[in-house]
Amino acid sequence: MDTHHHPILNPERRTHQTGGFAGEEVRLAHRNHGMHLEALRYDVTPAGMHYLLIHFDVPFVPDVASWVLRVSGLVERPFTISPGELSALPQVTQRVTLECAGNGRATIQPRWQSQPWHHEAVGTADWTGTPLKPLLQRAGLKPSVKDVVFYGADRGFDGGVEHDYGRALAPELAMRDDVLLVTAMNGQPLLPQHGAPLRLIVPGWYGMASVKWLNRIEAIDHAYQGYQQTGTYIYRTTAGEPGVPVTTLRVKSLMVPPGIPDWYSRARLVHAGPLDLCGRAWSGDGVGIARVEVALDGVWRDAELDPPQGKYAWRGWRCRLMAEPGERVLMCRATDSSGDVQPLEQRFDRGGFGSNQVHRVAMTVRAKP
Amino acid sequence: MDTHHHPILNPERRTHQTGGFAGEEVRLAHRNHGMHLEALRYDVTPAGMHYLLIHFDVPFVPDVASWVLRVSGLVERPFTISPGELSALPQVTQRVTLECAGNGRATIQPRWQSQPWHHEAVGTADWTGTPLKPLLQRAGLKPSVKDVVFYGADRGFDGGVEHDYGRALAPELAMRDDVLLVTAMNGQPLLPQHGAPLRLIVPGWYGMASVKWLNRIEAIDHAYQGYQQTGTYIYRTTAGEPGVPVTTLRVKSLMVPPGIPDWYSRARLVHAGPLDLCGRAWSGDGVGIARVEVALDGVWRDAELDPPQGKYAWRGWRCRLMAEPGERVLMCRATDSSGDVQPLEQRFDRGGFGSNQVHRVAMTVRAKP
Repeated sequence: MDTHHHPILNPERRTHQTGGFAGEEVRLAHRNHGMHLEALRYDVTPAGMHYLLIHFDVPFVPDVASWVLRVSGLVERPFTISPGELSALPQVTQRVTLECAGNGRATIQPRWQSQPWHHEAVGTADWTGTPLKPLLQRAGLKPSVKDVVFYGADRGFDGGVEHDYGRALAPELAMRDDVLLVTAMNGQPLLPQHGAPLRLIVPGWYGMASVKWLNRIEAIDHAYQGYQQTGTYIYRTTAGEPGVPVTTLRVKSLMVPPGIPDWYSRARLVHAGPLDLCGRAWSGDGVGIARVEVALDGVWRDAELDPPQGKYAWRGWRCRLMAEPGERVLMCRATDSSGDVQPLEQRFDRGGFGSNQVHRVAMTVRAKP
Repeated sequence: MDTHHHPILNPERRTHQTGGFAGEEVRLAHRNHGMHLEALRYDVTPAGMHYLLIHFDVPFVPDVASWVLRVSGLVERPFTISPGELSALPQVTQRVTLECAGNGRATIQPRWQSQPWHHEAVGTADWTGTPLKPLLQRAGLKPSVKDVVFYGADRGFDGGVEHDYGRALAPELAMRDDVLLVTAMNGQPLLPQHGAPLRLIVPGWYGMASVKWLNRIEAIDHAYQGYQQTGTYIYRTTAGEPGVPVTTLRVKSLMVPPGIPDWYSRARLVHAGPLDLCGRAWSGDGVGIARVEVALDGVWRDAELDPPQGKYAWRGWRCRLMAEPGERVLMCRATDSSGDVQPLEQRFDRGGFGSNQVHRVAMTVRAKP
């Protein structure tokens, strides 16, 4: 076999596509679970319904007691600490909405071949852990530190590069009070697929920053050049441009699809009459939701907002509409308190990142029997 | 819009395909979660990693206290009972491996457009509930009963037919001691996506028999003709034939893919030297596993079997191989105690059911650094 064509060694096997999906994309879709959109009804996403994005394999950890986090690099006092020791430090629980930076990739034309999300890569959990800041203070970052790098135990290839999953935060972000080292989710020990026994949570950022299976923090004096920082998670519209790194969540809303579905197409059938539509909206970096609008056949009106659930969690909304028989289209659109609003049409991104156009759901409305 | 072409009303939108996958198949793959094959390492699949097959929407149950199971039809003493009352009856915990009847559909050529599983639609859980038999005895099945039908709260369209999800068991199977009405999974209350607050578990059968969100049991005097019983879950090789209903699990084995993966292709890279391969094997209807064989580049040898975990749960196996540098292919193959053995090549099935050919995994073996 000609190893030059081995898929591990030849990242160019992936292309931009407009047609059918490859078997590789389907396998990724089965591995990396989406949240069922009807689960937008829950304030906190039930265990197993939160989205997953696992780059390599879920590490098998038969002996949690032997797990060690090493804090090293350009620090005054390097140390190691176990998840058990971290759990004995002051604990904080934060409700945080996470979304995959690639959510919506499959709706972009042409789409980059990767995880082919339509809308489902989102979820909200109560994350419990200890703040990172006091641990970095214990280590003592040297003045020359430019990046703090977080590594997971998951290892593999991407773009032809073998690496441990790694992402960096600038020191000022790593020292923010709400960045957590997490050992529990929704009041239970972390599940393997969510990073057990230890993960990072960076509220307000797309999910790639919240490194799972965390076993190493390293302070360095230059900008981190790891594949997950510089080879992907970059906004670009053309191949040659340097692009802009993906960081915080863009403003977005999704609705619970109304009525009942068709198994295969997921097309929706609704009875005529009052229709109580609901959903969730969120933005990034702690910016709140100011407004959600809903449209039936292109006529927009304001939805009612539920009370906020904290700085970093999605916000519920609801709206009663009157559905007349026929083929109808629903849309929802959020505006955040900084004035950012979801665009009506998809923006193109080469890697399929940051998609946040309005959510559209078609429905067939039938007369009441 | 021409309603004759509405996907709900026109089931013929689905076809047999040999090429790329449709967006509908990808959306189903994100909704219906697969088990990560590395989770074959666990005796009991962790919460959220067990496969899901949800035909319509996950029902939202804000008030579990109001859930009622109605036992009616051709019974002497119809009654209703709540999940709480069922939990107060004698409880049994059974370790059961469930698999979707469509597991492997995407590997069949041409494939029927439906849930496009490759290998991942399997999982094992400790299911806790009360046996169905005493409840049917309390109701008193009349002598004329031909089928006992189990309905879920999930409703939608399939094949152009609107229906509540429903499946029937013959009375002698429904009265088997090990058929359970389940309220807990792995020692926790059932999760919404696994059928909360009440589901059926039919050990040894493919998953379609284990009706989720169970709210109605009806005894009838004829063979149940519901869509999920007669319109699908039928083995057929040609369109015209009556076919054979899908029932118990076929003998099967899967391996944990060794080494480390490439993100997109899931291709595997392994270091040369001793390779400890492991996996799981199972069969249907309480038939045990007699043998598992493993092949490296087509040379078969016996794997070592772990102790059984009960009549209806998968059985672990392991085998040490010696991996030489180059492009290699691994296979595993199980034989059950009735003598059934996995075929080397895929059998064709029009609906993509009952796929159980040997599991093949390609790997690149590199010299140790």
